[in-house]
Amino acid sequence: MEMQINNLKHNEPKEKIMETTLTKKLNGLNTAQLFETVEHIKGQPHLAQFRFRAKNRWIDGTVNRSTIQGFYGAGREDESRKTPFEYATDEPPILLGNNEGANTGEFLLHTLAGCVTTTTILHATARGIKINSISTELEGDVDVQGALGLDESVPVGFTEIRMNMTISADCPAKELDELMEYAKSHSPIFNSISRPVPIQLGWNKR
Amino acid sequence: MEMQINNLKHNEPKEKIMETTLTKKLNGLNTAQLFETVEHIKGQPHLAQFRFRAKNRWIDGTVNRSTIQGFYGAGREDESRKTPFEYATDEPPILLGNNEGANTGEFLLHTLAGCVTTTTILHATARGIKINSISTELEGDVDVQGALGLDESVPVGFTEIRMNMTISADCPAKELDELMEYAKSHSPIFNSISRPVPIQLGWNKR
Repeated sequence: MEMQINNLKHNEPKEKIMETTLTKKLNGLNTAQLFETVEHIKGQPHLAQFRFRAKNRWIDGTVNRSTIQGFYGAGREDESRKTPFEYATDEPPILLGNNEGANTGEFLLHTLAGCVTTTTILHATARGIKINSISTELEGDVDVQGALGLDESVPVGFTEIRMNMTISADCPAKELDELMEYAKSHSPIFNSISRPVPIQLGWNKR
Repeated sequence: MEMQINNLKHNEPKEKIMETTLTKKLNGLNTAQLFETVEHIKGQPHLAQFRFRAKNRWIDGTVNRSTIQGFYGAGREDESRKTPFEYATDEPPILLGNNEGANTGEFLLHTLAGCVTTTTILHATARGIKINSISTELEGDVDVQGALGLDESVPVGFTEIRMNMTISADCPAKELDELMEYAKSHSPIFNSISRPVPIQLGWNKR
């Protein structure tokens, strides 16, 4: 990864430089923490192993709810969340639900947009590019004959997702194109959807 | 799809049967609406074409927010949601954020669990199987060296997801196994993650 710290002033006293480095933010990210994190991981690649988790419980009909709190990463259990996140999924009436949450297809689009955006911000910051705004529109096609089992020749799930980002950034168009090609190929969720991920699904009867 | 309506009492007056059929619920689903929906789609397969949507906006640092409201399906624009759903993603401090929402990897696990659960409920209902409870635990492995671009040999995104469901259902174990194998192969999100989905990503500079 290319890395640049553009704003260090080397003729300032060392304490001043340290302070500036430690508090400097670009795109809302603490650049010192970003570079420290990268250096740590370079020296000890096992710190890069993360294991994310979720629990989910069926409520009724098309409603279920996930609870998300701890994860393993950087060599230890994370304890930064004092209370869990909770998210419900439901379906609209036309798909037999009551709109108590977005449906799971929409949540997939949400997490895809979120990940490409965060990956863009991360690598823009590492390159010293200031981002002013990012807004994204997504749509994805599903033929529900697949899920309903009405026609086994119809693919189950999304057949295509289209995603358009509008970005304001303080850099030439060519640099933005390079940044976006890099973000696309380095976004974990983009690649978890566009490439196959093995899922081990087990169940037991209670 | 195998379909059974087990609870119609054919010696009752026709009005009574109709009323029972229209209001009958199994697993919180209106069984009449389920079968009507399936019959409609069988007759007019274009009604099965859905287009889901999301909009996302970068807020600051690792925080962004999605807005989800309309979609196209069953031959028309859906207008059932009077207000949009909003969901933020963020990262924990160790990944440079401030926990203003679950991260995108966790949202992927959430939507996977939600979809397999809803697909299970849908097909259990179609088979006349009463489900008492479903609870699911998921974990997924990510090596963040991939996303950071520190080692191009490391895959970007989840390398494996493990998912365990505990189910209480009023049916023999063998029927539950058949149901779950069916749900696994007919869950849109399970198949959108375990198989590759093409994503067209475009951007323009504002």
